[in-house]
Amino acid sequence: MSKRLIAAAIVAASATVSSPVLAGGEQAATVAVPLGQGAEAPRLERAGPAQRPQIRLERRSPAYWRVTLDNPPFNIFGPDTIPQLNEVIAAIENDPAVKVVVFDSAVPGFFLTHYDFVPVLAKSTGLAPGPTGLHPLPDMLVRLSRAPVVSIVSIRGRATGVGSELALASDMRFASREKAILSQWEVGAALVPGGGPMARLPRLMGRGRALEVLLGADDINGELAERYGYVNRSLPDAELDAFVESLAMRISTFDKQAIADTKRLVDIASLPADAEIKLEWDAFIESVQRPQAQQKIKRLMELGLQKNVDVETRLPHYTGTLGVK
Amino acid sequence: MSKRLIAAAIVAASATVSSPVLAGGEQAATVAVPLGQGAEAPRLERAGPAQRPQIRLERRSPAYWRVTLDNPPFNIFGPDTIPQLNEVIAAIENDPAVKVVVFDSAVPGFFLTHYDFVPVLAKSTGLAPGPTGLHPLPDMLVRLSRAPVVSIVSIRGRATGVGSELALASDMRFASREKAILSQWEVGAALVPGGGPMARLPRLMGRGRALEVLLGADDINGELAERYGYVNRSLPDAELDAFVESLAMRISTFDKQAIADTKRLVDIASLPADAEIKLEWDAFIESVQRPQAQQKIKRLMELGLQKNVDVETRLPHYTGTLGVK
Amino acid sequence: MSKRLIAAAIVAASATVSSPVLAGGEQAATVAVPLGQGAEAPRLERAGPAQRPQIRLERRSPAYWRVTLDNPPFNIFGPDTIPQLNEVIAAIENDPAVKVVVFDSAVPGFFLTHYDFVPVLAKSTGLAPGPTGLHPLPDMLVRLSRAPVVSIVSIRGRATGVGSELALASDMRFASREKAILSQWEVGAALVPGGGPMARLPRLMGRGRALEVLLGADDINGELAERYGYVNRSLPDAELDAFVESLAMRISTFDKQAIADTKRLVDIASLPADAEIKLEWDAFIESVQRPQAQQKIKRLMELGLQKNVDVETRLPHYTGTLGVK
Repeated sequence: MSKRLIAAAIVAASATVSSPVLAGGEQAATVAVPLGQGAEAPRLERAGPAQRPQIRLERRSPAYWRVTLDNPPFNIFGPDTIPQLNEVIAAIENDPAVKVVVFDSAVPGFFLTHYDFVPVLAKSTGLAPGPTGLHPLPDMLVRLSRAPVVSIVSIRGRATGVGSELALASDMRFASREKAILSQWEVGAALVPGGGPMARLPRLMGRGRALEVLLGADDINGELAERYGYVNRSLPDAELDAFVESLAMRISTFDKQAIADTKRLVDIASLPADAEIKLEWDAFIESVQRPQAQQKIKRLMELGLQKNVDVETRLPHYTGTLGVK
Repeated sequence: MSKRLIAAAIVAASATVSSPVLAGGEQAATVAVPLGQGAEAPRLERAGPAQRPQIRLERRSPAYWRVTLDNPPFNIFGPDTIPQLNEVIAAIENDPAVKVVVFDSAVPGFFLTHYDFVPVLAKSTGLAPGPTGLHPLPDMLVRLSRAPVVSIVSIRGRATGVGSELALASDMRFASREKAILSQWEVGAALVPGGGPMARLPRLMGRGRALEVLLGADDINGELAERYGYVNRSLPDAELDAFVESLAMRISTFDKQAIADTKRLVDIASLPADAEIKLEWDAFIESVQRPQAQQKIKRLMELGLQKNVDVETRLPHYTGTLGVK
Repeated sequence: MSKRLIAAAIVAASATVSSPVLAGGEQAATVAVPLGQGAEAPRLERAGPAQRPQIRLERRSPAYWRVTLDNPPFNIFGPDTIPQLNEVIAAIENDPAVKVVVFDSAVPGFFLTHYDFVPVLAKSTGLAPGPTGLHPLPDMLVRLSRAPVVSIVSIRGRATGVGSELALASDMRFASREKAILSQWEVGAALVPGGGPMARLPRLMGRGRALEVLLGADDINGELAERYGYVNRSLPDAELDAFVESLAMRISTFDKQAIADTKRLVDIASLPADAEIKLEWDAFIESVQRPQAQQKIKRLMELGLQKNVDVETRLPHYTGTLGVK
C-alpha cells in the first residue's frame, strides 16, 4: 500500500468517528438521570486545554457511571492515556455513591487496542509506580478489579492488547456478537503481553484455550469469545446496549456494601496475586527491547501500524507475514 | 396486590403440591430395587410426630439413594430443615454401601429456595457448630462435597439461595432445560450469600460469570446455566429423569473405593478451603442484621415473600423494585 | 462372542490400518518443508530392528514437528511405548529450533487408548523415574506441559485413558466433531486414573463436569467435549486437519522466546504441582493391585479387551456390565 493510500485510509478512518458518540439505545427511557439527546458529557479536568481527552466520564446517576474511550481513529493506548485512566480509576475507588461503571467506546470499530509504539520507551518505563507498587498500567488494572464497584465492559469493535487486558481486569464482559473482536496479538510481534492476560485468561477459560488465544495470537470473534468464556456473553449488536444498560441500572439500585462484600469474597478465589501481574509487565518490557520484537514492530510500522486502518483491523494477518521459519 | 389476592395465591400454590410426589420417569424399569407405583418412601425418624418431615430418604438400592426435598409450597430452607438434612448427610458419610445419592424435589416449581426469614435470627445463629467447626448449614455443605459418595442434583423448578448452594456443593448438577431456574438473589435484598457460592461459582465458571450471577442477582434459566457451567448439562425436561437415573445406576455398579479415591484427588484441585466458606457465612450473618437488609426483607415480606407464589417465582423482579438510587 | 468371532474382529481391525497413514489434508500446500505424497517419515532410532516403532517423529520444518502415534490396531500404550515417547519428549525439550509439535494418530478409530494390561506390572513399576523424580509416564506428561514449545493434539478416534491424559497434558486440544471420543474409563474397572486427569480436568472444566467425566467413566463425544472444555474446539472432521495445520504453521513463524515466556507465565496460574500428579500415579498403582480391579480387568480381558475391536470401541458399555450392586 502506497503512502498516499495509507493517508487516504487514515482520513477515511478519522471521518467515520465524527458520527454521534453514543448509540441511541444507551439513552433509553430507563436512565435514572436522563441526559438530553446529544448532551455533552463532562470531560475530565486533568488533560490540558491543548490535549484532547481520550477518556470521558459521564455520571448517569450518582450510582451509575459511564467511561467512554474516545481516542480516534483507533483507540490506541499510550503513556498519555495512563494519567487519564488513572484519574477515572481513582474516582471509582473513592466515590462513596458509585456502584457500577460501564466502559464503552466512542470510536467505531475499536473498543481499545494496543500500546502506543510511537513514544520512546522511557516515556512508559519512566512513569512512577502506582499505589500497588506496580507500573501504573498494571496498577490501574488490578485496582479496577479490586474496587468496591462493579465494572462492566461493553465491547463493540476491536479489544486487542490493552483493550483485551482492560476487559479482563473488569468484573464482567459483554460483547457485540457481530462487531466485537478480542485478541492478544502480541506474541505475533515477538512481544510478551504485559497487562495480565497470562494470569487472567486461564482462570476464565482454562489453560488450553488461554494458550490458544495467547500463542495463536489471532482474532477471536464475538461468537467464539462467548464459547471460550473470554466474555460473559455475546449479544446481537442491536441488543447489546439495552442489555448492558438494564443490568447496570439494576445493580445501581442494590446496596453498595452487599455488592462490595460479595465481590471481595469472589476475589479470594479468582483474582491473581499482584506478583503474578508484575511478572507479566516485566516480561513485556524485556521483550519489547529484544531485536526480534524491534524488528517486527518496525516492519509493522512500515506496513502502516497506527496509521493504516487495514493494518489495525487485520493485525493478525500482518503478524502472520512477519517471520518465516 | 391486595391481601386477599395474596391469600388466594397462597391457596393456589398449596393446592398444586397435592399432586403425586415422584414423577413416573423416576420409577423406570431399570431401578435395581423396584418400588411399587406410589409406594411411600421411608421418612426420616428424627422429626417429631407433630412436625412434617421436609426431606425424604429413599434407598433405591444399598448403593443408590434418593433424597427428596418436600417442604411445600416453596421448599424454603430454615433452621428446622437443618437437623433433617444433617441426618441425611451423616447417613451418606457413614453408610458403607452407598455410592451415589440423587437429590430432587417433590414440590412442583421449586427445587429448593432461600433461607427462612420468619424464625428469629437467634434460632439460626444459636445452633451448635457441626463437625468441621462451621455453622451447621455450611458444615453440611462442605461435608457433602467431601463425602466418599457421588452426589447428583436433579434440578426442576427454582434452585435459589440455599437451593443453588446445595447444588453447588454437590458433585454434579443436571437441570431441566425448560423448568430449572438457578439464582443467587441475595444481593438484591442487601444480603451477602452465605453458603459458599462466592467460593464455588468462580471455580466453576470463572470470575466474570460468577460476578454476574452474584451481583446481577437475577434468574438464570436452564439454557444459560449450562452455557455458563452453573450446571453440568441442561436436558429437555422429558429426558432429565431418565438421564439422571441411568447415570446414577451406572455409578452404583462401580467400585466404591475407586470412586472415593478419584473424587478425593479431584477435590485437591477444586474444593475451596473451609476457611473460605466460613467467611461467607459470617458475611451473611453480618449483612442480614444491617438496616439496609432488614428494610428490604421487611418490604419483600409485605409484598408476599414466603407466602405469595408470584413473589417467590419472580423474586428478582421484586428485588429490582426495592431501591432506587 | 466366540473365540473365532474375536479373531475375525482382530483381523478386521488390523486390516483397516493398512490404509495411508496421513490424511491428504495434512499435506496441504502451506507446508513449509513439503513432503512428497506418501513419503516415509523418519523413524525413531531407539527401537531395535525387531521392534516396530509405535511413534513416528516427522520434522515438517525445523520449527514445526509432527508426532504420529502408530501402534495398531488400537494404539494401546504400554511399558514398551514409554522409552519411545520419552525420546520424543526429550527431543522437543532440547531442540533449539522447534516451536510447535502436533500429535496425531495413524491408526483409524484410535488416537491413543489405555494402558497395556498384558505385561506384568513389574515391567511398569520397575522403570527408573524420569528427570522430575516421577514415574516415567507422568514424568513425560509434566515435561511436555512445561516444554518451551507449543504442543497441540489433533484427536481423531478414541482418546481414552493414557490418550486422554496425553491430550490433557498438551497445550491445546482439537478434535474431530464426528470421529473423536475422549474418556477416562478407569473407574469403571475399579481403577483410579494415573496420568493426571484429576488434577487437570477440574482446572479445565470445573469440578462438576470433571467428576462426571471421571466417575461416569463414559465416552464423551466431540460435541460434548467442546461444550465441556475437554478440548479447545471440535471441528467438522473434514476441516480438522487444515485448521490444525494452519494454526501450527502460524505459530511456527513466531518468536520462540516470546512463545516460551508467555507459556511459562500461563503455567503459573494453570499447571498443577508435580506432587499432585505423583499422588495420582501412586493411586493408580495401588488400585490396579486390588482384587476388585484385578477381577474386572480379568473379566474385560475374557470379553476381548486389547483384542476385540468391539470391546475397545464400546469400552464403557462393557465396564457397565461388570458389577451389579
